[in-house]
Amino acid sequence: MKIACVLAQGFEDSEFRVPHDRFTAEGHQVTVIGIKKGELLKGDKGRERATVQAGIDEVRPGDFDALFIPGGHSPDQLRADDRVVRFTRAFRDKPIFAICHGPQLLITADLVDGRRLTAWKTIQVDARHAGADVVDEPVVVDRNLVTSRKPEDLEPFVREALRQLREGTQPTAPM
Amino acid sequence: MKIACVLAQGFEDSEFRVPHDRFTAEGHQVTVIGIKKGELLKGDKGRERATVQAGIDEVRPGDFDALFIPGGHSPDQLRADDRVVRFTRAFRDKPIFAICHGPQLLITADLVDGRRLTAWKTIQVDARHAGADVVDEPVVVDRNLVTSRKPEDLEPFVREALRQLREGTQPTAPM
Repeated sequence: MKIACVLAQGFEDSEFRVPHDRFTAEGHQVTVIGIKKGELLKGDKGRERATVQAGIDEVRPGDFDALFIPGGHSPDQLRADDRVVRFTRAFRDKPIFAICHGPQLLITADLVDGRRLTAWKTIQVDARHAGADVVDEPVVVDRNLVTSRKPEDLEPFVREALRQLREGTQPTAPM
Repeated sequence: MKIACVLAQGFEDSEFRVPHDRFTAEGHQVTVIGIKKGELLKGDKGRERATVQAGIDEVRPGDFDALFIPGGHSPDQLRADDRVVRFTRAFRDKPIFAICHGPQLLITADLVDGRRLTAWKTIQVDARHAGADVVDEPVVVDRNLVTSRKPEDLEPFVREALRQLREGTQPTAPM
């Protein structure tokens, strides 16, 4: 499957690296999408780097099967760019994997109202205000949406993301 | 007047330095309050540093006349600490000066519902979801609350903060 990974400066190092490498090892193709092609992005902890493979103006949501949003300072910068917000919104019915601060981008893209999800502690408050059914669990799967809270949740986060890429999205939970 | 400045790593350099120095120059006393006394805090742009003068466990809201919340990555870290959130909430009826990401802390402290304010672009969305009347202006004064959006707004932000310290809070706007 083709996975769009939206990324900006100060991403949480392991939240990018671990899923990126696991997705790739399972045969999926991950494209790092940022504001400007070729920009070198550094992780907040200084452990990981990534180069923007495609600028936001060069990609179309239709080119990808899933969206991956690592945490750190990256999502809040991405959601300041209306093009990234529109790109994100287009994944409304495709698999979305967001961890830690990742749901900030989903909030701005109007994708959390009525959805069951989790996020980093401070973002749980914002997601709840935005209409989400927020729970404090290592991983939450609501149809196409897979969310986690922090680096310690990476194992179940990647497991459920890979399951969704393999088996398709889960049926909508009964209301 | 005694001003409590709550601060954590990655604060926006000028949003701390400019008001801090202007408040001090006008005879006010600014205390940098953080998670741990003595910690050296660095600005996100690497231009400014600040040492935590008092840990959150060592201070009481009653010791201060006003609260100052610089932006950057600092407010989102501070709102992850329940002690800082309680400290912030205690300024409900005292002057509060928050700029850029500063209102994130006010959101978690339940201080924005029904209030007229501004914030950094991405935080305007979260504040609106939290019940605030958000406007996109350089500085917004609603009774005890003075808010601005970004470093470019520092001049009117400091001006209105100083006015409030000098003249007291403005009367509540008519509903």
